Amino acid sequence: METEITMPRIFSFGFIKVVLKGAGQVMFQGNAWTGLFFLAGIFYGSYATGNPAVAWGAIVGTVVSTLTGYLLKYPAEKGSIGLWGFNGILVGCALPTFLGNVPLMWLALIIFSSMTTWVMVGLNHLLVPYKVSSFTFPFVLITWFVLLAARIMHGLPDSGLSAPELPGNFSSTFDTGFSHLVIYWLTGISQVFLINSWVTGILFLIGLAISNKWAAIWAAIASALSLATAILYQCNGADIANGLFGFSPVLTGIALGITFYQVNWRTVIWSLVGIFATVFIQAGMDTLFTPFGLPTLTGPFCVATWLFLWPHLNLDKKILQAG
Amino acid sequence: METEITMPRIFSFGFIKVVLKGAGQVMFQGNAWTGLFFLAGIFYGSYATGNPAVAWGAIVGTVVSTLTGYLLKYPAEKGSIGLWGFNGILVGCALPTFLGNVPLMWLALIIFSSMTTWVMVGLNHLLVPYKVSSFTFPFVLITWFVLLAARIMHGLPDSGLSAPELPGNFSSTFDTGFSHLVIYWLTGISQVFLINSWVTGILFLIGLAISNKWAAIWAAIASALSLATAILYQCNGADIANGLFGFSPVLTGIALGITFYQVNWRTVIWSLVGIFATVFIQAGMDTLFTPFGLPTLTGPFCVATWLFLWPHLNLDKKILQAG
Amino acid sequence: METEITMPRIFSFGFIKVVLKGAGQVMFQGNAWTGLFFLAGIFYGSYATGNPAVAWGAIVGTVVSTLTGYLLKYPAEKGSIGLWGFNGILVGCALPTFLGNVPLMWLALIIFSSMTTWVMVGLNHLLVPYKVSSFTFPFVLITWFVLLAARIMHGLPDSGLSAPELPGNFSSTFDTGFSHLVIYWLTGISQVFLINSWVTGILFLIGLAISNKWAAIWAAIASALSLATAILYQCNGADIANGLFGFSPVLTGIALGITFYQVNWRTVIWSLVGIFATVFIQAGMDTLFTPFGLPTLTGPFCVATWLFLWPHLNLDKKILQAG
Repeated sequence: METEITMPRIFSFGFIKVVLKGAGQVMFQGNAWTGLFFLAGIFYGSYATGNPAVAWGAIVGTVVSTLTGYLLKYPAEKGSIGLWGFNGILVGCALPTFLGNVPLMWLALIIFSSMTTWVMVGLNHLLVPYKVSSFTFPFVLITWFVLLAARIMHGLPDSGLSAPELPGNFSSTFDTGFSHLVIYWLTGISQVFLINSWVTGILFLIGLAISNKWAAIWAAIASALSLATAILYQCNGADIANGLFGFSPVLTGIALGITFYQVNWRTVIWSLVGIFATVFIQAGMDTLFTPFGLPTLTGPFCVATWLFLWPHLNLDKKILQAG
Repeated sequence: METEITMPRIFSFGFIKVVLKGAGQVMFQGNAWTGLFFLAGIFYGSYATGNPAVAWGAIVGTVVSTLTGYLLKYPAEKGSIGLWGFNGILVGCALPTFLGNVPLMWLALIIFSSMTTWVMVGLNHLLVPYKVSSFTFPFVLITWFVLLAARIMHGLPDSGLSAPELPGNFSSTFDTGFSHLVIYWLTGISQVFLINSWVTGILFLIGLAISNKWAAIWAAIASALSLATAILYQCNGADIANGLFGFSPVLTGIALGITFYQVNWRTVIWSLVGIFATVFIQAGMDTLFTPFGLPTLTGPFCVATWLFLWPHLNLDKKILQAG
Repeated sequence: METEITMPRIFSFGFIKVVLKGAGQVMFQGNAWTGLFFLAGIFYGSYATGNPAVAWGAIVGTVVSTLTGYLLKYPAEKGSIGLWGFNGILVGCALPTFLGNVPLMWLALIIFSSMTTWVMVGLNHLLVPYKVSSFTFPFVLITWFVLLAARIMHGLPDSGLSAPELPGNFSSTFDTGFSHLVIYWLTGISQVFLINSWVTGILFLIGLAISNKWAAIWAAIASALSLATAILYQCNGADIANGLFGFSPVLTGIALGITFYQVNWRTVIWSLVGIFATVFIQAGMDTLFTPFGLPTLTGPFCVATWLFLWPHLNLDKKILQAG
């Protein structure tokens, strides 16, 4: 059977490498070492914050979504660089973060992390003419539906979700000492995987630097600039302290700053504007989702990055023309 | 005039056949007998539940939307198999279900069931590269706008709509005796045309079986599996009892199970997963529309079926590759 | 440097002409005199209603978005007919209308009016296969995000926005004397630039007539028909009196009636139906945005016009086939 040729045996070294690359691809790095540091950060952070189900969900989500790609016989060269795993790992982190740790949650986690793989293949088909990919949107879309569904399913306890309310009330106070700012800055990076831990932020930066030092630099810049923007515009203080204005801009920064544009002074300005805009898209989506108590996930990153890639979709390795 | 050649005379036998096929196409059957059973089910159900305007709206909606296709001179081979009528009939069922029976409602019903025909042609143009059609989405989109509009139009009494409220409160209790479950199962099928009647569900199953026994089988399986899923996840009990978790999965089941994929054991599993996912998309959209008191209509079916067709849009008669 | 060849010097006569054409393009008129009358209307109306920041915002928005096109070296023939300015001028009108007049608002106004230019280029890329353009949607999308963001940013006072609430309560009373109806009719036209002034409405009609008498006629018809429709369906009275059912249909009327279809009796009927439908899409989006206190901006015009252009996207200068 053809299958056995293309699919590495589960628990083989080759398969573990593919799974680790899946973790790395969340931040555009098809590098197993990067993925290992990401998983280490997830395990540290989820145990430290008392919700280890997130870490095990991450493992299950990546394995299931990667296996799904082999089972459905999608082109194996995509799978082998981790492109089947990065949406699945995020579903695996998100469901135990927002829902109660019950068997029905795990059933949903397995089926819907599996579903990310074919939804990604489908959405990428749609996006071929526009020369962008679906990024983390398969994860975002599917998780939105599951979390919204939990509101009318007693079988999925919505214990980790905010109560639905009309937008409007918030406080912009938070601790502004330098050490606090450093913590917010690192937490903004850790929140890419829905982890609230500055230690995890450091592990993620190390993981990025192993694969590509510019990716680590842009993640650091993006989290700092988005933090500064959120403070300048006096955003919701609790969200600032929890790094919730950071994670989408971090992904926008890596995408625009190094992944899809070549580095030069024009693309640096371009990427900084993209990071600034992502903060507003984040805040806007926060408001839009308040009546449902729904998290934006990495939706703002997807929207912002598409808006900053589409204008130049004719360019091969996108370079804003030099003056 | 060319028109008279292509357009059957109104009230001619040929025109009536086209109208009946339009009813049948709601469940993908371009068969006049199927359409006749569907209309019989609609008439029975709407009179039984005391709202005969629904049945007459269905007639008006199908006739108007079909005539629109001839008037705008769209390719007549599409019209003759009923593709101009299936969105119009649903508008005709939906407006009298949710709005008061007043002359301004009938004016809206005529104009907006007519509009489904060119919105369908337009959306199908957009979807050509993606090798899927717009399904019932023209009906869904237009009806959403009209029902939302009714909230700030005293001329359209929103008597059949739920009150807008924040999501969150619901009870999962309902009668669980076997005969009740059978009623919910059949009602899930009747709700495809917004009818709440188990007798209508039987008439719809007979209509389907006349055209294609597999379509009837998949409708039956889908309503049963979606009912089981909704019970397993302890969904809103009132919605379960009214068949509101059934109608979108029924359409997904017919679409995936027999219409767009060839029947084999792999596509059977695929379709079952699609039905399961449709329940979550249904529940998620229910939550999303709670602050507006807006029904999802068959939106969840459209979204789910697109997500399960796009990954394989390169295949002619879609076959998940055999192992 | 190449730039200096293609970009007119700022404050040169050529550049001012381009900026004025940008104002005119909001209503599809690449005519500097039209733009001058539009700006005159904006200045008159914003000073008359006590919010001059709107007028200066309009100037800043047009200049910044036009300069952005030159800086990013997009094809200059588009810029020279004003296509880089019309989204920017609307951002420049909208932010001071809905947000407080503070420095952080002006920073956002500059960055986000600039952003309309590349978002327009990007969205137009997406729409190439569908032979429609993005219209004012870049303005709409970006302004939605900024206004939503203001709900959780104390730095952007949301003083001009409605309070978020669940939809449902409204009064349909308003003054119905003939002179009042004339004022509502003209205000519906002035609201295209978010101005609430019947004098501005007259200035806009004059500006349109200078460029194309049919454009002025369709604007007048559209505002009248949308007013009649809103009264017939007993819409929210305050919105009727403020011209808020008029501005989107005005744009739909100009788009369908004269810009994208050739004038004949069939396209006249078609355009009237389009205007009628735009009122419902307007009312529907009003309801949808009530829980966020968010204005629809010209979103209803974009949606309606796309729905009425897509069915005939194969036609060059769209003509509904004559009978």
